[in-house]
Amino acid sequence: MVATTLQTLDRGLAALSLLAEAPAGLKPAELAERLEVHKAIAYRLLSTLEAHSLVRRLPDGRAVLGTGLIPLASRVEKQRLAAAAPLLATLSAVTRTTSCLVLADGANAVVALVHEGGDGFLRVTYRLGVRHPLTRGAPGLAILSGRPPSDDEPPGVQQAREQGYALTRGELQPGAVGIAAPVPAEGIEAAVSVVALQELPPDAAQQVVSCADAIGALW
Amino acid sequence: MVATTLQTLDRGLAALSLLAEAPAGLKPAELAERLEVHKAIAYRLLSTLEAHSLVRRLPDGRAVLGTGLIPLASRVEKQRLAAAAPLLATLSAVTRTTSCLVLADGANAVVALVHEGGDGFLRVTYRLGVRHPLTRGAPGLAILSGRPPSDDEPPGVQQAREQGYALTRGELQPGAVGIAAPVPAEGIEAAVSVVALQELPPDAAQQVVSCADAIGALW
Repeated sequence: MVATTLQTLDRGLAALSLLAEAPAGLKPAELAERLEVHKAIAYRLLSTLEAHSLVRRLPDGRAVLGTGLIPLASRVEKQRLAAAAPLLATLSAVTRTTSCLVLADGANAVVALVHEGGDGFLRVTYRLGVRHPLTRGAPGLAILSGRPPSDDEPPGVQQAREQGYALTRGELQPGAVGIAAPVPAEGIEAAVSVVALQELPPDAAQQVVSCADAIGALW
Repeated sequence: MVATTLQTLDRGLAALSLLAEAPAGLKPAELAERLEVHKAIAYRLLSTLEAHSLVRRLPDGRAVLGTGLIPLASRVEKQRLAAAAPLLATLSAVTRTTSCLVLADGANAVVALVHEGGDGFLRVTYRLGVRHPLTRGAPGLAILSGRPPSDDEPPGVQQAREQGYALTRGELQPGAVGIAAPVPAEGIEAAVSVVALQELPPDAAQQVVSCADAIGALW
């Protein structure tokens, strides 16, 4: 890896990490010392980062992280959603149900992506952006089952952990049944879920688990 | 600026921006073309970004933004809070009240920093992390007053906009009076606020406005 990286870029990114660890920011001389580079190099690294809004200079010359990082970070999740969308579409096609991707946000689950499906007269679907506590519904239980066991987890989480998916009936909506599996990924908590009126195909759970694993491999 | 920046770092950061604009990610050849560099350079830029978790490679070779950006972005706000803390402490000292910094989060205001103050027998204070709608309380009205006027803004916002601060009595807590001013800053919505039982010193509003302006200048 070392042979194929670029020293100047590597130093600039190391500067970002050092600034992230310094709540009050760093003076150029401090940064130069920590990076073990000449002070003139530290100035040029900071100027370059500043030109991209990734660093901001305080009136006393200290450098802190800049707001340009915030939109970049928000794109990370958008790219993950874009990558997951075709896999959800396939899941809907093979299970003939509506499928969705749910993200954990604090103590809540948020519906982040929906692919409508099902060929009956009536169709049940998730509303994009809706939130519900992680302690309710298959997607919430699936996300909790991806965490280490805890004493205060709701009933059903341990079972979901053992079987690899959560199945709930009528928890979020009377008459609806949901199956959800956690997405195995670093740095994000998510679940793939399908929902149907009353009955799901016999292999739906296996399809949901496979889809969640495939999304985890992509992420 | 150009003369003092570093081309390799600049290209690496430009690559991050290009990846942010490509929801499905970019192949190294596509990135090379957009950056107008040789493909070998694009590979090395990506490898370097990947080594810092700022880029992730999908199984088909496309590069997308990596999760390393998320903790960096979260530090931006932590550094802002750290920078504001001593100014809040000064505000509490000169007004002999509890002061706080409130951030907008969606439709809510969140208490992000508190400096307790006041020398009476009883002290009123904010609870760190508490949320309330922006439409209630001096900090919420102050944040709304920092936005352009709108038809559905609550009463008091226009007055706060004109005088530079919001003053409320008993809105969040019976018996408490609050004064808050918006922090003039890019990329973040915040207000500085003081709270007291019944009465605030006559120059409190001016002190709050000065503190908010000073924090804005730092940010």
